[in-house]
Amino acid sequence: MYGLIGKMKAVEGQGEALLALMAGNIGPMPGCLSYIVARDPADPDAIWITEVWVDRDHHAASLGLAGVQALIARARPLIAGFGERFETEPAGGLGMLPEPGV
Amino acid sequence: MYGLIGKMKAVEGQGEALLALMAGNIGPMPGCLSYIVARDPADPDAIWITEVWVDRDHHAASLGLAGVQALIARARPLIAGFGERFETEPAGGLGMLPEPGV
Repeated sequence: MYGLIGKMKAVEGQGEALLALMAGNIGPMPGCLSYIVARDPADPDAIWITEVWVDRDHHAASLGLAGVQALIARARPLIAGFGERFETEPAGGLGMLPEPGV
Repeated sequence: MYGLIGKMKAVEGQGEALLALMAGNIGPMPGCLSYIVARDPADPDAIWITEVWVDRDHHAASLGLAGVQALIARARPLIAGFGERFETEPAGGLGMLPEPGV
């Protein structure tokens, strides 16, 4: 499996708007086992996104999905930059969607 | 919701053992909506754990569960320390377990 942990910085004052946009518009994506959008209590203009994918290719392919591209276009004006970013290899745990027949 | 993103450092050479122990022994816990254990491809002796809980209290209470205490006792000799640690407030996304009647 392929995982990502990343911090997204919003334009000043737009943290909640970015959070709502991202958290409210995440639908099922081929190979996506977990995609969690969270507030950063230490920074009102930062959000954390933690992801688990069947593999790197499915993550890369998701960026070409029409829905994802539309969401990125809507989010771009709210994004000031990116903070920490860690790639991981999820090995197990709770709460991942069953691996769909990808 | 309450979330945690944390890096755990294993004793040198014990990264895979710690990963297997943690990933292989995570069972349902009251209020736990997601608990994912992952390898750090950049560091063979580090693992990442990302968690989502109904609230902070449920996370705190989990540390008192017999199964969790037993797992911590087994893991302690393999743990050299902790790296990055971020508290979050998950707001939405995919793959979280349905909120059990907690």
